[in-house]
Amino acid sequence: MNPSSKRVISDLKELEKLTSDERGAQRVAWGPVWRKAREWFAGKLKEELSLPVRQDGAGNLWTTLPGASERSIVIGSHLDSVPGGGWLDGCLGVLAGLEVLRVYAAKGERPPVTIHIVDWADEEGARFGRSLTGSAASAGSLDPQKELAHLVDRAGVKLPDALKENGISLDGMKTAREYFDGLQAEAYLELHIEQGPVLQEMKRPVGVVLGTMGVERHHLKFIGQAAHSGAAPLHLRQDAFLAGARFALAAQELATKLSGKTPRTRVVATCGVVKVEPNFVTAVPGRTEISIDMRALDAGVLAKLLAGTKKASLAAAKEFSVKVEWSPILKITPRIFDETLTGFVRKAVKGVTGHAPEIPSGPLHDAAEMADIVPTAMVFAQSSPGISHTRIEDTPEPALDKSVRAFLATVEQTVEHLARKAEPQRKRAASGRR
Amino acid sequence: MNPSSKRVISDLKELEKLTSDERGAQRVAWGPVWRKAREWFAGKLKEELSLPVRQDGAGNLWTTLPGASERSIVIGSHLDSVPGGGWLDGCLGVLAGLEVLRVYAAKGERPPVTIHIVDWADEEGARFGRSLTGSAASAGSLDPQKELAHLVDRAGVKLPDALKENGISLDGMKTAREYFDGLQAEAYLELHIEQGPVLQEMKRPVGVVLGTMGVERHHLKFIGQAAHSGAAPLHLRQDAFLAGARFALAAQELATKLSGKTPRTRVVATCGVVKVEPNFVTAVPGRTEISIDMRALDAGVLAKLLAGTKKASLAAAKEFSVKVEWSPILKITPRIFDETLTGFVRKAVKGVTGHAPEIPSGPLHDAAEMADIVPTAMVFAQSSPGISHTRIEDTPEPALDKSVRAFLATVEQTVEHLARKAEPQRKRAASGRR
Repeated sequence: MNPSSKRVISDLKELEKLTSDERGAQRVAWGPVWRKAREWFAGKLKEELSLPVRQDGAGNLWTTLPGASERSIVIGSHLDSVPGGGWLDGCLGVLAGLEVLRVYAAKGERPPVTIHIVDWADEEGARFGRSLTGSAASAGSLDPQKELAHLVDRAGVKLPDALKENGISLDGMKTAREYFDGLQAEAYLELHIEQGPVLQEMKRPVGVVLGTMGVERHHLKFIGQAAHSGAAPLHLRQDAFLAGARFALAAQELATKLSGKTPRTRVVATCGVVKVEPNFVTAVPGRTEISIDMRALDAGVLAKLLAGTKKASLAAAKEFSVKVEWSPILKITPRIFDETLTGFVRKAVKGVTGHAPEIPSGPLHDAAEMADIVPTAMVFAQSSPGISHTRIEDTPEPALDKSVRAFLATVEQTVEHLARKAEPQRKRAASGRR
Repeated sequence: MNPSSKRVISDLKELEKLTSDERGAQRVAWGPVWRKAREWFAGKLKEELSLPVRQDGAGNLWTTLPGASERSIVIGSHLDSVPGGGWLDGCLGVLAGLEVLRVYAAKGERPPVTIHIVDWADEEGARFGRSLTGSAASAGSLDPQKELAHLVDRAGVKLPDALKENGISLDGMKTAREYFDGLQAEAYLELHIEQGPVLQEMKRPVGVVLGTMGVERHHLKFIGQAAHSGAAPLHLRQDAFLAGARFALAAQELATKLSGKTPRTRVVATCGVVKVEPNFVTAVPGRTEISIDMRALDAGVLAKLLAGTKKASLAAAKEFSVKVEWSPILKITPRIFDETLTGFVRKAVKGVTGHAPEIPSGPLHDAAEMADIVPTAMVFAQSSPGISHTRIEDTPEPALDKSVRAFLATVEQTVEHLARKAEPQRKRAASGRR
């Protein structure tokens, strides 16, 4: 195995041992195990590379390997995990970043451009429900007062108090964008596990991520009339659950129909929350609440899916003589990654694995926030089994090895690309000083 | 309005005033409001008819108008209600029984056969979950130790302790069958509101009840694999909710297909309980639990429905790559009422209303327990709106009037019928004494 991959895997195992219990990883953002993970990471940087870390106003942890130019590349992911999470989700990308620094530091000369590594704060949103907190703050897309001030965890702790324990304030979070702007970042790169079964099904260890899918998330209420299961004849019922069932199946059929044949064009619709009332064995459901989460990389396709499911919900409501109401929960536009950088990813993945399978990311990532403000690209390592947010999340070592090598090759190309762009500026800057 | 109907309606309103609050009737069995209702009922019997009441070992409240023959007719229903119930469910039948006694007492001579009125204990099972408790004890179909000893209400009170407050013990309940056998009952009659919309849709104020439908009640678990709503492509999912949705719709379609065109042949299937796990907006449901409650008057049709839904559940499980498990909750065979007595009901209802619409009862009634041990028949009063177990349960006064008149006419025919049968016996008994 490549020595870089060996070191990354060894670091991952060390971190797992330090921050997991028998139920899995416990690096939940803003808590003590997460802080322990970050201290361990900061210790590595200090011991091996004599590099200090800095926390920005939003709690993102930064370290910098200065280059010949201040123009920079940012490599990031997150050390935080869901409770009972796996050994790779998030930390793979941060520790691949650490390895990038090792590789460039070992060359004995400053890299042509500056390299920043960031451990984003609270990517998962596992404790307070708001994900991508740190990267959204850096991208300037977070309104801390409006989005965070009211959040409370299951134990009743307020998010502002949890932030305070970590030396962070809601107002201070607003400075994260300014901090980011000061970095002169011209590229953002992230290595992450896929968290799904697509690469596994394709039998490809590493994938080229095209972007993150757009999301339309809504809450539906079907409102009928509760009745006695024995007394109400079928044709006189207003069964809110059957309307919801018809809707869920129609949404799945529509998403299947709108899906293309390639992973790139896949479309998903998921009814994850289902609640019926009165929820008695002898009661025809008078009310049914259903959530729908729809995703596609193509904004036009996503709009078609939304329109189609709205129509399907009305047809289902009519069929069962009930009413339906929609309330929006979340709308995120698709983020298509940078063409040039994705070209580097493609070349690197093909160079290492012989193939360059292109897939969109269904889950969101910090890269989705970065894509709005800086050219961004991502590399996916195969998940096998194709699940995540569980202790049994895994990527076989050969695939991990190839993903790290493809990521390092992507970084190298990006550094060279930025160096070529940076040269004339350096010359201009030099002549300006005269 | 007929004077008998007037008195019954006046009694119903008096009882409502005494035992309801702004949320509806509160005569929950074994509690203080229920006892107050029974004391009021016993007071009426004593004041108006000088008849005492007796409580049997299961808490059923009996009164008797002795006849020329000890052969008897039993008229019953229940004063207990669900919490927040209506003004008619149960008590209509008991107060119609009181009116029967008034009518025969007013004749100034003993009726040819003995007439017993019973207020069955805990028909609703609202507090401890076991319905038809008192009538099942009288029918000998209840095993108190096995079925009641472990039951606990929401406040943590054990059923045996609640019984004790009412002077009843689990062992004592076993004597109720013996008590009943001592009555020499040869007919059981019950007037009840329909609790459904069938008579209302037929525009008929009173109905002839053919029997109570058989019930097949089961709990299904669909077991798939939870996955991330964005990461899992549709074709690689094991969505337990979609399988459950497909099943529920298939069950409804099958029940519709098996239903005949008349109320008599109606078949119902209801999925009343639905629970999905993990129940997150971003999680493909890995588990779905669904209850199904199926009813039909024809045992063969009910068996077909059960077999068909089992098949449908396997097809749904296969379609979505999940597993399905069935657990039985309750199985009740259809109870077809006595032909002769139902003939009297038919004649009486037709005599009063000009029509004799025949419908099965979807809900169970104490009459279902009685049908196993004594010739039984029931009269239904139209429900309008066609719902029950709610404060707004109602029957318009003209329909109530007609139902009481039809019930009195049914009792009269039954008394005459038993009197004809009783005569030879009386002669034999007389000769035997010589």
